Amino acid sequence: MASPRELTQNPLKKIWMPYSNGRPALHACQRGVCMTNCPTLIVMVGLPARGKTYISKKLTRYLNWIGVPTREFNVGQYRRDMVKTYKSFEFFLPDNEEGLKIRKQCALAALRDVRRFLSEEGGHVAVFDATNTTRERRGTIFHFGEQNGYKTFFVESICVDPEVIAANIVQVKLGSPDYVNRDSDEATEDFMKRIECYENSYESLDEDLDRDLSYIKIMDVGQSYVVNRVADHIQSRIVYYLMNIHVTPRSIYLCRHGESELNLKGRIGGDPGLSPRGTEGLVWNKLVHHRLKWKSPVRSDLNLRKIMPAGVENAFVGIRSGDELEKGDSLEVLAGVCEEMTYEEIQDHYPLEFALRDQDKYRYRYPKGESYEDLVQRLEPVIMELERQENVLVICHQAVMRCLLAYFLDKAAEQLPYLRCPLHTVLKLTPVAYGCKLESIFLNVEAVNTHRDRPQNVDISRPPEEALVTVPAHQ
Amino acid sequence: MASPRELTQNPLKKIWMPYSNGRPALHACQRGVCMTNCPTLIVMVGLPARGKTYISKKLTRYLNWIGVPTREFNVGQYRRDMVKTYKSFEFFLPDNEEGLKIRKQCALAALRDVRRFLSEEGGHVAVFDATNTTRERRGTIFHFGEQNGYKTFFVESICVDPEVIAANIVQVKLGSPDYVNRDSDEATEDFMKRIECYENSYESLDEDLDRDLSYIKIMDVGQSYVVNRVADHIQSRIVYYLMNIHVTPRSIYLCRHGESELNLKGRIGGDPGLSPRGTEGLVWNKLVHHRLKWKSPVRSDLNLRKIMPAGVENAFVGIRSGDELEKGDSLEVLAGVCEEMTYEEIQDHYPLEFALRDQDKYRYRYPKGESYEDLVQRLEPVIMELERQENVLVICHQAVMRCLLAYFLDKAAEQLPYLRCPLHTVLKLTPVAYGCKLESIFLNVEAVNTHRDRPQNVDISRPPEEALVTVPAHQ
Repeated sequence: MASPRELTQNPLKKIWMPYSNGRPALHACQRGVCMTNCPTLIVMVGLPARGKTYISKKLTRYLNWIGVPTREFNVGQYRRDMVKTYKSFEFFLPDNEEGLKIRKQCALAALRDVRRFLSEEGGHVAVFDATNTTRERRGTIFHFGEQNGYKTFFVESICVDPEVIAANIVQVKLGSPDYVNRDSDEATEDFMKRIECYENSYESLDEDLDRDLSYIKIMDVGQSYVVNRVADHIQSRIVYYLMNIHVTPRSIYLCRHGESELNLKGRIGGDPGLSPRGTEGLVWNKLVHHRLKWKSPVRSDLNLRKIMPAGVENAFVGIRSGDELEKGDSLEVLAGVCEEMTYEEIQDHYPLEFALRDQDKYRYRYPKGESYEDLVQRLEPVIMELERQENVLVICHQAVMRCLLAYFLDKAAEQLPYLRCPLHTVLKLTPVAYGCKLESIFLNVEAVNTHRDRPQNVDISRPPEEALVTVPAHQ
Repeated sequence: MASPRELTQNPLKKIWMPYSNGRPALHACQRGVCMTNCPTLIVMVGLPARGKTYISKKLTRYLNWIGVPTREFNVGQYRRDMVKTYKSFEFFLPDNEEGLKIRKQCALAALRDVRRFLSEEGGHVAVFDATNTTRERRGTIFHFGEQNGYKTFFVESICVDPEVIAANIVQVKLGSPDYVNRDSDEATEDFMKRIECYENSYESLDEDLDRDLSYIKIMDVGQSYVVNRVADHIQSRIVYYLMNIHVTPRSIYLCRHGESELNLKGRIGGDPGLSPRGTEGLVWNKLVHHRLKWKSPVRSDLNLRKIMPAGVENAFVGIRSGDELEKGDSLEVLAGVCEEMTYEEIQDHYPLEFALRDQDKYRYRYPKGESYEDLVQRLEPVIMELERQENVLVICHQAVMRCLLAYFLDKAAEQLPYLRCPLHTVLKLTPVAYGCKLESIFLNVEAVNTHRDRPQNVDISRPPEEALVTVPAHQ
């Protein structure tokens, strides 16, 4: 019988790990969230102006946010890098040999980069964004995946609704680098012809012919879906995500609770009451005052309740429905033994912990508490629900707001814990093209600053004054 | 501007709630998890022996477990209750007027019960389990849903693979009450003819004709899916669940960590080392010893990591892949201020809390801690992953094991916190027909008992000895 392995606790993540040769062994999935044995190659399929790039970018952002190292490879961008100026649709004609040659080169260059990313740089998922409209082309890519030990999953977007196509052409493609400084009508006409170049040879994923492939077909931006041979956990997650996103225009409003008594004292976490200014700044009053209009008819707080850190319910979170704020619960990272302490006290009692946190604020776990990384995992169902919603308001705590903001603004894990989310300020996020527009609405009630920047010195031997140099002023 | 509402903390769930007339207002969704504005009617569609009842029961079990009050209505059971003895397939012949009349009566009786459940008894989801193979029939049910303000979602199971159908006939239908004490060949023949009775008039859900309905079509037990017009959060959850379950035979092994030093002392939670017996009982050694074989090739610990209560990582959880135990992390309910206390100390310091917990152990939240209800929500992604897996082992803590066990054995929330999960004992769950077979494998290393039954007296004024009467012996 094998002897039990020695375990030791990793000081940053507080995980018990096996020892090997007197040193903690590396954690199996240290690099990122591990959802599968082998890398995944997502292959987009569809005519131009079917939202392939929108889906690619959004999926990439989501997967990176949940901790799966993902990158998108847009073959159109390779083409633009190679052929500096775009002339006309004629480049895409099926009998344009020069065009065909260049496009093939671009696809190969993109696949080379896919291989480097997945096989050498530790990537888990690559999104290969091109039309891939013929079965032959897809066969080549599938073969490339097989040779390299990747699982291939096809994502086809089919639109037959002329309005959807027209909107896509207007919104996305006229903002494309190919049509900068072109007359709008001329650009539309060229683009329509460009679509025609693909239409004749387009072969959709087929129930019979492609029965052995793993794929999802998305019809008319989510009106319906066909899903075939979901092969593993990551594919299942991707399918679920793609089935929850929509393209209806809307805004997401993020806001922290009103200023609390503990905020004033520079204490973190806890279960405090609001300060007088916090009560005055209570967000929903202000929002009513600002006459923000809501139209979300869905009452759905399950996913929010799901991630409530039980027992630390000092402030308020809600999905606004009708004119009533639904819930009074809170969402915040659990600071464990450091709950209700000031940064000065944390430095005093746990200087090593404080330095470790500054070294890697995203992954650091408070003793008996959580890390930002934990929080992101807890917030994943909330993001899924926010994707489903139309206009929606979330009132939450600083750390939660940073996680949500990072998702919508595509910020890296390193930046996430330092995103600025001041009190008494609503951040309005409006999805546009491939990202989100951010507006900041100050609620006109002053509040204390709770943002602590990363200090220059994060060494565990630093003197207290250097650890505390960025602590904001408090009572 | 409206004045801020007064809030008060609910002592059981520790939720801040608005006051109204000096008493806390009822929480919006007190009765169950609220995922939608209106009840949902799930309507099964498919020929006999396509797994409709399997899906109905499994979905019902899942939804109830995540807190959505759900009930299934099996029209076949209504028929058996009405016509006590089943004679032969002739009952189902399309020209058997007597049979038609009875079947219609049964369907109506079932729908009456659906209405009572959803509109009077607080049910959120009803699963209407019948063949519903004609468009006309489905139209009637859809109309019934519309009239009563329910959203209708169709779940069609289509099998064309003869092996799947044959297996279904053998496994499920020959165990049906209709064929008790019948010769097996005779039963099979009758059942095949019964299927034929429906085949002529069977109209599958159609891309065009049913384009306005919300539905999922499941082809050949999950080989592929068609999903149309997912209308809300609950439908999205249902689709995700149905896309994750499979019918490949396998077993799920649940086991607690080895006996800990705190177990010996009768202390809960905490971050202890193992006792000598605990080390000896380390489960994976025992499992290797018992030569249990694993064949799950998937390395997937994301969903397990996701729910780790950060910082309380004393024991071990893993999805066994190959021969290596993947992870060293723990899953347990967070006992907040009561971490590492004995029950005697909890009674001493927090007698009110202790009594409240005994009054409703499922919903009770420890101050700054969690409830079993919270834990179930945190474990939902684990269940989803366990559904995807084949043979799989989970090593976890008592409370987590109870939650997982309740899911597989379909135990109610009230029973869940009292399920017996002794130390050093592997519980083996094997899905059979509509449920799970449970086997208990003792690892042959003695361990302390940590199970505390509900005492008779749960009143907040009870004397300490009555509160402590069921505490198991400890050091």
